[in-house]
Amino acid sequence: MLEDKTPQRTPLGDLGEFGLIKHITSKIPLYNDTVLGVGDDAAIIEARDEQTLISTDMLVEGVHFDLSYQPLKHLGYKAAVVNLSDIYAMNGNATQLVVSMAVSNRFPVEAVEELYSGIRLACERFHVDLVGGDTTSSTSGLILSLTVLGKQKAEKVVRRDGAQPSDLIVVSGDLGGAYMGLQILEREKAVFQENPDIQPDLQGNEYVLERQLKPEARQDVVKILHELDVVPTSMIDISDGLSSELLHLCEGSKRGCRLFEEKIPIDPKVYDLCEEFNLNTTTVALNGGEDYELLFTIKLEDFDKIKGNPNLSVIGHITEDENRYLVTRDNVAIELTAQGWNPLADKEE
Amino acid sequence: MLEDKTPQRTPLGDLGEFGLIKHITSKIPLYNDTVLGVGDDAAIIEARDEQTLISTDMLVEGVHFDLSYQPLKHLGYKAAVVNLSDIYAMNGNATQLVVSMAVSNRFPVEAVEELYSGIRLACERFHVDLVGGDTTSSTSGLILSLTVLGKQKAEKVVRRDGAQPSDLIVVSGDLGGAYMGLQILEREKAVFQENPDIQPDLQGNEYVLERQLKPEARQDVVKILHELDVVPTSMIDISDGLSSELLHLCEGSKRGCRLFEEKIPIDPKVYDLCEEFNLNTTTVALNGGEDYELLFTIKLEDFDKIKGNPNLSVIGHITEDENRYLVTRDNVAIELTAQGWNPLADKEE
Repeated sequence: MLEDKTPQRTPLGDLGEFGLIKHITSKIPLYNDTVLGVGDDAAIIEARDEQTLISTDMLVEGVHFDLSYQPLKHLGYKAAVVNLSDIYAMNGNATQLVVSMAVSNRFPVEAVEELYSGIRLACERFHVDLVGGDTTSSTSGLILSLTVLGKQKAEKVVRRDGAQPSDLIVVSGDLGGAYMGLQILEREKAVFQENPDIQPDLQGNEYVLERQLKPEARQDVVKILHELDVVPTSMIDISDGLSSELLHLCEGSKRGCRLFEEKIPIDPKVYDLCEEFNLNTTTVALNGGEDYELLFTIKLEDFDKIKGNPNLSVIGHITEDENRYLVTRDNVAIELTAQGWNPLADKEE
Repeated sequence: MLEDKTPQRTPLGDLGEFGLIKHITSKIPLYNDTVLGVGDDAAIIEARDEQTLISTDMLVEGVHFDLSYQPLKHLGYKAAVVNLSDIYAMNGNATQLVVSMAVSNRFPVEAVEELYSGIRLACERFHVDLVGGDTTSSTSGLILSLTVLGKQKAEKVVRRDGAQPSDLIVVSGDLGGAYMGLQILEREKAVFQENPDIQPDLQGNEYVLERQLKPEARQDVVKILHELDVVPTSMIDISDGLSSELLHLCEGSKRGCRLFEEKIPIDPKVYDLCEEFNLNTTTVALNGGEDYELLFTIKLEDFDKIKGNPNLSVIGHITEDENRYLVTRDNVAIELTAQGWNPLADKEE
């Protein structure tokens, strides 16, 4: 009946997630001690000598995960990690987590326990307090909604809007692994559906499978930066893909960038698999997403502090203008675009 | 495939929501400045001279709301109010809200705007900052997950566990209205489904319809208590029904109660409708739920402060033992039981 009553109808996919959020959340008035509302990895709330950070994520079965290859414990772990990652992306410390879930009756209690055991494992590993939640039924499938609180001293909180010309662009770990893990899982699922007698062949692909099924949040990078006495000028975590996230930093800071293709850190296994799947490695690293590495900018004078750290790669720099370029191995500058991922686009059933 | 791999299967409905939460959240370790974790209306986090409160709620289409009679703007307003109510139920001030939603593609952008306009209206009315969220697609229906932060001085935060013998049991407003509003909506929906030419007859029932479709959170009661210099010894909001919530206070405080049937505040309109629908008014008030009134206990010596306040009714008192009684109009004490509402129970499709 909604369809009949609404005179104007703009399909959700037209705006996309970012467009929709921007559209809905423009000019939101603030009444309390909120330092920063919608628009970054987390909101910032003043709380005396430290600020409170808050971030939330929703994961929907059939959209964000596929239970035919995602074990529930891993899913719980990943759901928590994805959420915590937003706090680390503010250079903060994650402290409390609330978890809501809607489950259809096809899930027995033991399934919910499995899921929670993964969430609790993440809380244990990252020293986060699980402090509440809501559990209810769904009419179909499993929906998870997590909200995390964190904190940090005001002068150490890092937003998306502080990148300055000549700042270096740095990324942690390596990219594209989670995406290639997903390719393998999708391939093996297709083989299985064709012939249920064939066992999935996952051997030798443990690294990329773990990147997809059980990623880690880079709390360690926040600690390293603290120890090195480096406060990034801007930071974000890589959930949608390097290009999409780098564009967010540039847009937030109203600056441009030069990203060097040859500097993008990629694991040898990802190279091998890209060849096997006939995919371009750079495209995978730029647009694959779900690696949950941290992408940040630092002042040029901080380079000596991070130089040689095996967890960190300098992949480019920020420019004065607003042109965003990928500089290829052949030294050609092409415009950086985000394929990203639009969870609101129409999908074929 | 879940069905095949899990050797032990306990249906979710067997445990019920409270059972499941208790089961999953037992012995959760805490690592940070968490004062109180799972188990009350909100968690409590130490934050210097005030404490941070956090609470979350999930609302699922087809389980918690029916869009065939719930306008989207009202739904947004109600979703926010239900969440804020948990902070007021801790005697706190709600300050920030994050909203996640999963929407199927059958909803146009305008529908999401309508929903948000209701949420924003609630934020405006209750002076709460909308600071973030996540928007994604669902495979079916609409799912809302809201998390609210609040704050209060440590000595004024009210939990469920502080009721003492001889404390008075107090409730705000009146009860049963939201339930009777739902009865009318369900009746008119059935009539409409039988014969779409008949227009719904809602005239004269505005009060109970508003109680159901657009309830208010009792922020005003928190203010009144502050002005009267009364700090309740325990408090909860009435979402599931008076009996269920009173039992929560008794269990939390390890005490009993005597609740007087004749003292339960009921609007004359609810009496009329109960007669029309052939329902027992007391049963409706005890088990109807969704009134979002505040139920709390105060020390006997605070009675003079609240006496005569039209927003507050004394409906019973706390006892030393753990017997929970409803004292009927005929002065017969019967055991108080909660029918409540189990969102995890099997439902017929």
